[in-house]
Amino acid sequence: MDNTTIEFSKTAGKPIRCRGDRRWCAAAVAREAGEPLVIEEVIVAPPKCGEVRVKIICTSLCYSDITFWKLKDPPAYFPRILGHEAVGLVESVGDGVSDFAEGDMVIPIFMPDCAECMDCTSQKSNLCSTFPFRVTPWMHDGTSRFTDLNGETLYHFLFVSSFTEYTVVHVANVTKVETSIPPNRACLLSCGVSTGVGAAWKSANVEAGSTVAIFGLGSIGLAVAEGARLCGVKRIIGIDVNPEKFEVGKAFGVTDFVDSRSSGDKRVSEIINEMTGGGADYCFECVGKASLVEEAFACCRKGWGKTIVLGVDKPGAQLTFKSFDVLHLGKTISGSLFGGLKPKSDIPILIKRYMNKELELDKFVTHEVSFEEINKAFDLLLEGKSLRCVIWMDK
Amino acid sequence: MDNTTIEFSKTAGKPIRCRGDRRWCAAAVAREAGEPLVIEEVIVAPPKCGEVRVKIICTSLCYSDITFWKLKDPPAYFPRILGHEAVGLVESVGDGVSDFAEGDMVIPIFMPDCAECMDCTSQKSNLCSTFPFRVTPWMHDGTSRFTDLNGETLYHFLFVSSFTEYTVVHVANVTKVETSIPPNRACLLSCGVSTGVGAAWKSANVEAGSTVAIFGLGSIGLAVAEGARLCGVKRIIGIDVNPEKFEVGKAFGVTDFVDSRSSGDKRVSEIINEMTGGGADYCFECVGKASLVEEAFACCRKGWGKTIVLGVDKPGAQLTFKSFDVLHLGKTISGSLFGGLKPKSDIPILIKRYMNKELELDKFVTHEVSFEEINKAFDLLLEGKSLRCVIWMDK
Ligand SMILES: [Zn+2]
Ligand SMILES: [Zn+2]
Ligand SMILES: [Zn+2]
Ligand SMILES: [Zn+2]
Repeated sequence: MDNTTIEFSKTAGKPIRCRGDRRWCAAAVAREAGEPLVIEEVIVAPPKCGEVRVKIICTSLCYSDITFWKLKDPPAYFPRILGHEAVGLVESVGDGVSDFAEGDMVIPIFMPDCAECMDCTSQKSNLCSTFPFRVTPWMHDGTSRFTDLNGETLYHFLFVSSFTEYTVVHVANVTKVETSIPPNRACLLSCGVSTGVGAAWKSANVEAGSTVAIFGLGSIGLAVAEGARLCGVKRIIGIDVNPEKFEVGKAFGVTDFVDSRSSGDKRVSEIINEMTGGGADYCFECVGKASLVEEAFACCRKGWGKTIVLGVDKPGAQLTFKSFDVLHLGKTISGSLFGGLKPKSDIPILIKRYMNKELELDKFVTHEVSFEEINKAFDLLLEGKSLRCVIWMDK
Repeated sequence: MDNTTIEFSKTAGKPIRCRGDRRWCAAAVAREAGEPLVIEEVIVAPPKCGEVRVKIICTSLCYSDITFWKLKDPPAYFPRILGHEAVGLVESVGDGVSDFAEGDMVIPIFMPDCAECMDCTSQKSNLCSTFPFRVTPWMHDGTSRFTDLNGETLYHFLFVSSFTEYTVVHVANVTKVETSIPPNRACLLSCGVSTGVGAAWKSANVEAGSTVAIFGLGSIGLAVAEGARLCGVKRIIGIDVNPEKFEVGKAFGVTDFVDSRSSGDKRVSEIINEMTGGGADYCFECVGKASLVEEAFACCRKGWGKTIVLGVDKPGAQLTFKSFDVLHLGKTISGSLFGGLKPKSDIPILIKRYMNKELELDKFVTHEVSFEEINKAFDLLLEGKSLRCVIWMDK
């Protein structure tokens, strides 16, 4: 695409009617749980104070989009504009925005980073206190920037809503990126790939030469493998119900595979304890099942093993550990939201590592479709055929 | 005591009959659960291969001695020689022992450190794989070195059994110490004080300027405070059912107190979250109640808070956390056995810090008694009057 042809000054400050004006645009609206998205014209309000309006270049489909699309009740809301992995150009900025200007290439990220609060200025936290991450259908101020042509409000998703040509995002939820990274690679860093790579690199701080066990070889689990590979691990054990995932995993550095459906009388943790002679140094739970977190804990190495929880279980799910095991085995349990990454400072590092050909992003992109074909992206992910399907807005 | 008057060569290699020979000695035997210890003559076998026989100089009473003395069923066993905080002199060594020699001053420590296995050579673990820590009534080889005068076997305790003038300990369970540290300070480093200080220093690696919450201001909790003080914390919040503990705690750097019995409608975690504006940076559970671990987790700071479990709950007790809290709050849970300390390398560091007048040990010693008065030491601790009561063998 040729950025120079876009004259954002013509739209700045005005509502953008997608599909209405010369610059054709549209949103793919989730109108009902589990029903195909409907591409339709929507009106995108100008950015309020502290916000930017972004013209999406491309977006990719993450499993969380599917989860909230399938869900019938809150925290699912309809009609909603889903999508939260994307890259785009700033079309216009709201009052008080000085760090971003028209034409900047940005990645919207669901994890807020105000860059000023106690957490955002600390090296240890990625949980902004000014704009706490919540699963809400609104912008941070509790309102929406989207309406359909009947005047009905459309809900936001994860502070991003990228299945639309234009979206509005708070500055806390965008990170500026170098234009040298191709858009269909940059968008991956919005959520899934960063979450997995960060979990290994930042949350677990995986040591070179160590052994890692990954429960669930979906995109997140494979991204953990990629992060672990970058950290120089010796051995990556993948655990999945689907043995085909081992073939996929090999390209991501997975060296061993445990088929959790054919483990016989043995618990997966027993098999891994035997394979490793006492447990993996790091165990990552990427499925979102409390029982798997407990399995992971049971096969992480005594003395120093870390169990990292990445998967989101049902609301209210509980994790249970024997008090004795926690005290006497020297193991640690922690969670990893967005891989422990601080969007504004860590994403540029990942981009640099991609440009240096260290971080491999290409292998995550299994499909690319046009915006018109967005429902195909859903089908591919639902059928387990894709890792990341990139959806191009202008193609 | 004058070491030069002891002629260990006269006893080396022979069973020592305590109270029998010129050098009067005895053991305080726990014959029945909860009954006063009986000071009686016992026979202490010579050390086997890899063991040393130690003449105890003084020993101190730890709450674990009380726990196992009160308990009627396994893991309690009777008749048994309790005691596991002590300092003494090597009287003789078994075959294959080259690192210890007659006359060496040593601290027996319940945590084994073989100095050779994968764990003992790692900086990250203090859980020896060659000699795993277990709650067993035997030496590592499953036998006892003690018999009474009727030929009945006496059980060991925590690989140490220090309520006796002579004991036999495996080399993995003794650490050599400089003779410059007074015995009634050295013995404290065998268990409780090291556990607490190490929990702050090693397990949590407490940062200067941070805020610490300590659940339970017994000796272990106060030792955590001492460790936190050494790490340069800003604020130490003590939580206890007994408000008198606040006065005691002040000497250990406790700056704030929460009386958990008069917290009204509020949970202790709520009070601490309010006091700290979002939680303590580190929470230490030193009581051994699963419900308190959950309270501690609930008031440790999002983003970086660490909850450290030191207290031993009943066998089978479970810790339960909301999956959402673990994933979304960026908090860590871990256990700390012997404060994460590696006996052979870390205890000499604590001794050095004591000699440099950094680590304060004096304030832990509230009472000193003769061996004849050992049951008084039990009474003082049971009545909550003592922190550490030192029991002198030769006085
Ligand atoms: Zn912030
Ligand atoms: Zn996502
Ligand atoms: Zn060892
Ligand atoms: Zn103890």
